[in-house]
Amino acid sequence: MNGYRDLRIGLLGCGSVGAQVARLILEHGDELAARIGARLTLAGIAVRNVDAPRDVELPRELFTTDAERLVQGSDIVIELMGGIEPARTLITQALQGGADVVTANKALIAAHGPELSEAAEQVGAQLSYEAAVAAAIPILRPLRESLAGDHITRVLGIVNGSTNYILDRMDRFGDSAEDASRVASELGFLEADPTLDVEGYDAAQKATILASIAFHTEVPVDAVHREGITQITAEQIEAAKSAGYVIKLLAIAERLQAADGTDGVSARVYPALIRRDHPLAAVHEGKNAVFVEAEAAGELMFYGAGAGGAETASAVLGDLVSAARRHVVGGPGIPGSLHAELPILPVGEVMTAYQIMLEVRDQPGVLASIAGILAERGVSAASVEQTVARGGAGDEPSAALVIGTHRAREADLAATVEALRAAEVVTAVTSVLRLEGQA
Amino acid sequence: MNGYRDLRIGLLGCGSVGAQVARLILEHGDELAARIGARLTLAGIAVRNVDAPRDVELPRELFTTDAERLVQGSDIVIELMGGIEPARTLITQALQGGADVVTANKALIAAHGPELSEAAEQVGAQLSYEAAVAAAIPILRPLRESLAGDHITRVLGIVNGSTNYILDRMDRFGDSAEDASRVASELGFLEADPTLDVEGYDAAQKATILASIAFHTEVPVDAVHREGITQITAEQIEAAKSAGYVIKLLAIAERLQAADGTDGVSARVYPALIRRDHPLAAVHEGKNAVFVEAEAAGELMFYGAGAGGAETASAVLGDLVSAARRHVVGGPGIPGSLHAELPILPVGEVMTAYQIMLEVRDQPGVLASIAGILAERGVSAASVEQTVARGGAGDEPSAALVIGTHRAREADLAATVEALRAAEVVTAVTSVLRLEGQA
Repeated sequence: MNGYRDLRIGLLGCGSVGAQVARLILEHGDELAARIGARLTLAGIAVRNVDAPRDVELPRELFTTDAERLVQGSDIVIELMGGIEPARTLITQALQGGADVVTANKALIAAHGPELSEAAEQVGAQLSYEAAVAAAIPILRPLRESLAGDHITRVLGIVNGSTNYILDRMDRFGDSAEDASRVASELGFLEADPTLDVEGYDAAQKATILASIAFHTEVPVDAVHREGITQITAEQIEAAKSAGYVIKLLAIAERLQAADGTDGVSARVYPALIRRDHPLAAVHEGKNAVFVEAEAAGELMFYGAGAGGAETASAVLGDLVSAARRHVVGGPGIPGSLHAELPILPVGEVMTAYQIMLEVRDQPGVLASIAGILAERGVSAASVEQTVARGGAGDEPSAALVIGTHRAREADLAATVEALRAAEVVTAVTSVLRLEGQA
Repeated sequence: MNGYRDLRIGLLGCGSVGAQVARLILEHGDELAARIGARLTLAGIAVRNVDAPRDVELPRELFTTDAERLVQGSDIVIELMGGIEPARTLITQALQGGADVVTANKALIAAHGPELSEAAEQVGAQLSYEAAVAAAIPILRPLRESLAGDHITRVLGIVNGSTNYILDRMDRFGDSAEDASRVASELGFLEADPTLDVEGYDAAQKATILASIAFHTEVPVDAVHREGITQITAEQIEAAKSAGYVIKLLAIAERLQAADGTDGVSARVYPALIRRDHPLAAVHEGKNAVFVEAEAAGELMFYGAGAGGAETASAVLGDLVSAARRHVVGGPGIPGSLHAELPILPVGEVMTAYQIMLEVRDQPGVLASIAGILAERGVSAASVEQTVARGGAGDEPSAALVIGTHRAREADLAATVEALRAAEVVTAVTSVLRLEGQA
């Protein structure tokens, strides 16, 4: 393997992903050189503690605690430290120095992606972060490049493996929420602080990144409407199942027209019902999948592992090879593209459908009164089903109703639920879930 | 939208895909310009008959019958004529003149891909053909770029929508093969000459392309082992269903070690059983999906429409935008990569498992005799199930057996089936199917 020029790779961080990245660069050196036309030389690995144990045995002389110096001497920097600082400063220094940067840091990209892309663009460097969303699954490159001539209309992602694991156990084994969470925790699916997962923060960061790329628009993570799975009960899972649905935590990015005609973008995360014959319904355990709808391409789905050291390393290596090829052939990197600058619409503007479960007084005129509440807010029922009639509180007989609405504005649907809660004939609203994945 | 340079696009062919490509270029001009940094100007559309009816209304002055002259004046040529000639000559002329070429022509790429890639590489032009495999689904770019740092071990593709439609109808509605084919034909899923689909020729062309890209090796289409679906019966579909399997026509590309230790590549197309909980089992109707296994990334699946004018046009546009960006930033295209030059192994070297259905004489010692036939060829049974016992030909009672083997060399499995056919205790071998999608 003579005649190749060397490209110096600086690796920041050596956790489960970093160790696998280092291993792949060292073990596949000849093959990578043949594919790239240049040899990747691992110049160093910056860590906090040189003597910490690693997943993979790596030459000790590669390790350094001087990340800044490593960055200065690298053609391509791979950032796998996580967190905002010092990652943000080091990446900025690398880009300003003309190095390409590959990162898996979703929190950083969600918070500072546009600023970092701007730094890259100013010097013609490449910033890439395929591993930041859905780990091993190639999704950002297909959105950015393969669908570059199409109009993406909607992205529905199962992008958090932990919550999918919990919901899947509840669905397939009838676990309670507590039992499913305990198993997920024991298997290492949940962080020590599970809030990032179960409250949807992690999924919201990914929704930001997906929406920004799909719609060429800066979507701040604060603008993502976010609901987690902590309110989901075994009863809701069971009811969904018998009605032919499954509950999934979805990260949704969507082109949308507001009530006043404004074209904009919605980014949101919430648990929702999807039909069992939808391709996303078959995504089990900790797997991830991203379902994409585009004007010309129609429906596409990208499925695979959403976590794991080797799996995430595969995506990092893909970005690394692209960056290295750019060094070989010359020319600037593909800039981040935020040219559309669409407004971000509030969740109230979203068109969706609700499934509402109620307990009502078992007396004449109840259905008419409920139908009136829906109609007043412009919401129409697609189905009304009376399930079991049972004894209510005190002496009064009550009945359980399941209302499926047609698609309507989220604001009108939410107002309808409030009105139902306040209605004299309604004794309890027991479940409200959105229905997604429909035309 | 001032200040952009113009890129001249020459379109060859204006069938269902070509008309959509022309429409998208014309309708999305401003947006494409913003994404690319250059304006795409449709320089002309070469057709045989300028006055033929089109799917889309297009300016008449764009049409020409002089394809050669159009090619000479274009920065990027999009070839959607299909067939080998004159497409091959025109593409070669375009590449030799330094133009980039985008094509959806699977027959041409399967037969002459390496020669055309070589022509592109000599002048630093880009040849791309995402739309040639699985239409709208981004698969070639992820294989070539996203997984560039990984080792792909196996690709299992449902890449022919017509045969998937037929098999899916037989599975889900209990149709006979004839009824399912008739419906597929009526809905336009089948060509006038359905042989290309049902005999697996179309899938074999795609297997060639997938194997070449996944394994960096020239895989001639003649080296693809090919079996179609014409022998599949409703009885086999039904038996598969009750055993928890579904029959799919698979295009398989696989890294393989031969019995003598040679590392090589297998490319093959045949109908096979896959478990119902495998992600490929949920691919219904005319949809396509490609399931990829890689050392680091694990299991990935890419799902979507495998045909259609607009759908295929989406993939063509993605390649077009990439080619156009290359013109803007400069530098050569990504060359076709066939550096691994692995040997293509015959189907006999493949490791697979068989499901064999037999009718046997209902007499003592039958099982022992059958077990002996397997053992002599190094094949071991994973399961033996006696299904219905029924009256045989004449007076003799007979029984039906279903044998599932463990994984073994295809050559040994095929020899085992031959020995079973010849065995005195076996009255008939009623079904032989391979079992794929397992570790």
